[in-house]
Formats: sequence, C-alpha cells, structure tokens
Amino acid sequence: MPSQAFAPPAFADVLAAAARIAPHAHATPVLRMRSLDALAGCALHFKAEHLQRGGAFKFRGACNAVWSLDPEQAAPGVVTHSSGNHGAALALAAATRGIACHVVVPENAVAAKLAAITAYGATLHRCEANLAAREAACAAVGQRTGATLVHPYADARVIAGQGTAALELLNAGIGLDALVVPVGGGGLGAGTAIAIAGVSPSTRLFLAEPAGAADTAASLARGARVTDIVPETVCDGLRATLGAPNFDILRAAGAEAITVDDAGTLAAMRLLWQRGKQLVEPSSATALAAVLQQRERFAGLRVGIVISGGNVDPHALYEAGALHGARA
Amino acid sequence: MPSQAFAPPAFADVLAAAARIAPHAHATPVLRMRSLDALAGCALHFKAEHLQRGGAFKFRGACNAVWSLDPEQAAPGVVTHSSGNHGAALALAAATRGIACHVVVPENAVAAKLAAITAYGATLHRCEANLAAREAACAAVGQRTGATLVHPYADARVIAGQGTAALELLNAGIGLDALVVPVGGGGLGAGTAIAIAGVSPSTRLFLAEPAGAADTAASLARGARVTDIVPETVCDGLRATLGAPNFDILRAAGAEAITVDDAGTLAAMRLLWQRGKQLVEPSSATALAAVLQQRERFAGLRVGIVISGGNVDPHALYEAGALHGARA
Repeated sequence: MPSQAFAPPAFADVLAAAARIAPHAHATPVLRMRSLDALAGCALHFKAEHLQRGGAFKFRGACNAVWSLDPEQAAPGVVTHSSGNHGAALALAAATRGIACHVVVPENAVAAKLAAITAYGATLHRCEANLAAREAACAAVGQRTGATLVHPYADARVIAGQGTAALELLNAGIGLDALVVPVGGGGLGAGTAIAIAGVSPSTRLFLAEPAGAADTAASLARGARVTDIVPETVCDGLRATLGAPNFDILRAAGAEAITVDDAGTLAAMRLLWQRGKQLVEPSSATALAAVLQQRERFAGLRVGIVISGGNVDPHALYEAGALHGARA
Repeated sequence: MPSQAFAPPAFADVLAAAARIAPHAHATPVLRMRSLDALAGCALHFKAEHLQRGGAFKFRGACNAVWSLDPEQAAPGVVTHSSGNHGAALALAAATRGIACHVVVPENAVAAKLAAITAYGATLHRCEANLAAREAACAAVGQRTGATLVHPYADARVIAGQGTAALELLNAGIGLDALVVPVGGGGLGAGTAIAIAGVSPSTRLFLAEPAGAADTAASLARGARVTDIVPETVCDGLRATLGAPNFDILRAAGAEAITVDDAGTLAAMRLLWQRGKQLVEPSSATALAAVLQQRERFAGLRVGIVISGGNVDPHALYEAGALHGARA
C-alpha cells in the first residue's frame, strides 16, 4: 500500500485544496438565526456543512485526497477504515474520479451507514471491531489492490481539505472574533487552524468536544496526547482519538477546547432543529452548546460555527429518548 | 374598523413591498439539493422561506401591510384572525413597528401556536371555532380598538408582500421554466403570479394543493370559486378556502393546480428532511410532491419551489405516525 510521510499542511495547501475540490464540492451557505443570536448574546454565523455533498464537511478532505493523486496512484483506487461520514465521503469522492474505493468496516457497524457507503459504489470489507484489526485489514486491502490509504483525519491532504470550510467562512467578510468547530480526530480542527493562520490570525479557535470523549481537552491540558480514553457520547462523529499531527497543529495554534455534556449538546441540537430548521446530527451541535455554555466569554462577539454534518436518523434519536423536550 | 376596498396589486406594488420590508425581512437563501435533482429529473431551486423571520413567508405580507399604514392608521394597531403562521407573522410585524396586534383565535386552537403568537407580544381574543364567529370577533375588536384588519390572504398589501419571495427567486439569475408554490388561501400564489408577470412572463406557475382541500383546483376547473369543501389534510397551513381576489388573479394568470395526496406530501417532506436536512412543515412539501408526481412534465426543466414554512413539531408528527418510514 503506498503511503506518505506526514508533512504538516501549510496555508498554500488549503488554497490548493480549495481550487482542487471546487468542481466537485458545494460552497455551502452561511446561515444566520436571529433567535439563536438573542439566546446566545452574540452574532452566530453557521457554515452549513450539513449541506455539503455526502451530508458532512468530510467530503472536502476526501475529495482533496482523491484528486491529489497522480493518475498512476489513482488508478487502483483508495482505501480507508471508517463506519461513519468519512467512509461515505471517500466513496463519493472516489466516484467523482471514477476510481475504486474500499472501506474497512467493523462487524458491529450500523447497517444504515453501510448502506450509504455502498450506495456511492464502494466495496465493504468486514473486520473485527477494534483499531488493530481495522488497520491490519486496511493494510491488507491496500497491499492486495494497490489502493492508497486515505486516513480519516491524520492525513495532510485530508486536513488541508477540511480547512477549506473555514477558508470560505473567513473570506465571507464577517470579521469573525472566534471560530468554534467540533473535534473528534481533529481533521477539521487542524485544517481550520491553518486557514485561520492564513486569513485572519486574530480569530480565536475553539474546539467543542463531548465530555464523554474529551481526549483533546486532556491532551492540550497535559501538553501531550492522551490516548486511553474510552469514548461514551451520543456524538457518534466525535468518538475518534485526536491524531498525532492534528494534536501538534492544534497545540501550536493555541486552540482551546471546551467540553460539553451530551444533555447540553442535545438541547443545542433541538434549537438548531426548531429555531434554525436545520436537521443536524448531534456532533454538529457541540459547537453551539459550547457557546451557550460559556455565554460571558462570547458575549457581543462575531462567532463562526461549522455545522459539521446532518447524517442523523430522527427515528433512532426519538427511540433513544434524545428528542424528549422537543415539543415546539 | 378601518377597511379598504380591494384593488388588485400590480407589479409596482410588489417592488414597493420589497423596498418596504427590506429592513425587517430576511432575503432567504436559494438551496440546491443534488440528490433531489436526481430523483426528480429536473433542476430544483428551493427558496427557503422556512428560514424567514417567524419561520414562514407569511412575514413578508404581514410586514408589508403593517409598514404600509400611515402613522394615524398604525397607531391603534392591527387585528386579524388566524391560529397559524399568519397570526404569528402579524404579531412579529407589529412588533417591528412597535404597534399593538390583536389576534382572534378559535377556542380549539393548538396551545403551541398560540404561545408563538403571544411570544411576539400580541393579544389573543378567543372565539368559537367557525368563520362567522371569527369575522364577527375580528370586527368587534377592530371597532373597539381602531385596529386595522390585515386579512391572512385576501388583502392587496399581503398579496404584494408574499410576491417578494418569488421576486427574489426570479431575480436570482436562474432562468426558471416553472415555479411551484403551495396554495391555501392563495396569498402566496397570487403574489407569485404578479411577480412572474413583472419579471419573467414565460415562467409557468403551478399551485400545489392537498387533495383533501382542493378547492383551488376545483375553482380553476369550474371557472368560479368553489367554497363548500371541508378540508381534511395533514397540511395545516393549506386548509383555507381560496380568496375571491386571489382566485381572480390566479385565473387571469393561467396558473395550474396540481393536487397531491397527504402520503405523497409526507414522503416529500421526509426527503426534504433527510436529503435536504431542512426541517419543513408538511404544507411546504406539497410543491416537491407535485413535481415528483408529474415527473415527465418537469423533466429537464429549471424549477423553482417556494418552501413556505418550517413551523413543525417533529414530536407531534411522530406521534401521529407521519414519520413512519423516516429511517435513514
């Protein structure tokens, strides 16, 4: 399996990514929600990545990775391990280039998510539900097929691609004082940090993280990656452990983590549903939850929020009791 | 109660309305949903009026009416009868001008909708649940307070205001072949017809109407208003009977009604939720349902759709079984 040594992406890589994905990705709208401004006491600008192709910002990074490959590299396709938005995003990105995509998925993966991946034409490969098994299966598929690994977040091409969401938002002429993004593996966070450095260094970066998966907060506090946290959160998109290069970029950028509990996240999600009319997934609501939790800190500021994705199943959330209190 | 003889609005009135409401109303975004294009076989451009203030296009007409009043007229406030989006819209519009708003509501009105109206500062007046009682109560409030009646749809100022949604959409440079809007009382439909005549006369106007409240289809077919239909539909925003001036405008414009059953509407609503990530109310989905029902007719066209509102209670819809089949 071809691999590449990790060289941290620079701002030029984010600009190159923006040009590379432009023919394929949506320039998503920035939404304003007046009643949420009143609640939060600041001016919120929502970058609507749940309206991105594939329903999440993940398509940006996946698309940049796929279209970064030279023709010989690209021919055998790409491979990754993911049962969530990255798997679907890579499958869709590969489809835009007409190359194969292999996705290694754990045996316990949710059927609906796998259906989304196969709907975009990718091939599934089952493995046991642990990281070692996933990585081994991924390597085996890569060796057998020659497919290039596209890691969900610890990949320079992916990070540069994710940074294009913040690039668009920062270039919208708002003059943001702060930018808040959800953090799981840190692909979005790291890309956002690089975009901020290139466009608007005075904008402060905050990482919204579920209290039940707060390895980023712990890592930044300790000054070294904490990798032994077992995630437990309703935010299925934020259970990954912060990647090593992602940590380095975020620490160097002075990013600050804000942890939010699931109750706060679900309350924020209901606000986005009811007031904003946007059907976002729980992970997406962590950023709004963080702002509402620390009102004094954001008071009067112009705040950007990246809504990360909208791949939610209202039926499942209802069954899980997550919508209690959701009456209008 | 001051009233005014009905003079049908002209295109100049729509332009004047646009200027009048600009400081208060949102210029809502036009959303594209690639996967729905694929399903429908045409290019759909959604005017997102569920993101309008108050959660529906109704704010445009109410705002135009409120700001059309001269200071003496305005001072005693406005009055209307409505238990739905128009009541809330008029309350909000009155608040933007700092004048009183009286809303006559039937005894059986839904508590949540009344809460929205009072949250904007309006005064509620209860009456029996029939049209005669509503109109009598409205007249009584008007006589006692001097408030000006703002009818939900059979009002030239309201019609001109509703037309501004289509005005923005038609001026977006898309070159629409067809425009599809939901129809109840016909305020949106009539305003849209006037905007089309002024901006893009070759664009065809279609009215999406619930099969269980299809008085507009019957009226256009017969060439005279049909007023004896008892509505039965999940689309709570489309149960009103087509207004007399609205009928005249729509008939003269050659608008065509397409009736859709509630099952088709709810299926379209689920598509807007799941694919579009937009939490719209059932009434809003009739237009998409109409396009999906008549695929051949719209094949390959550039089609505009006005998403009328987003004031929906997912919990209530779930309880009513409307979300069955909503699994991703």
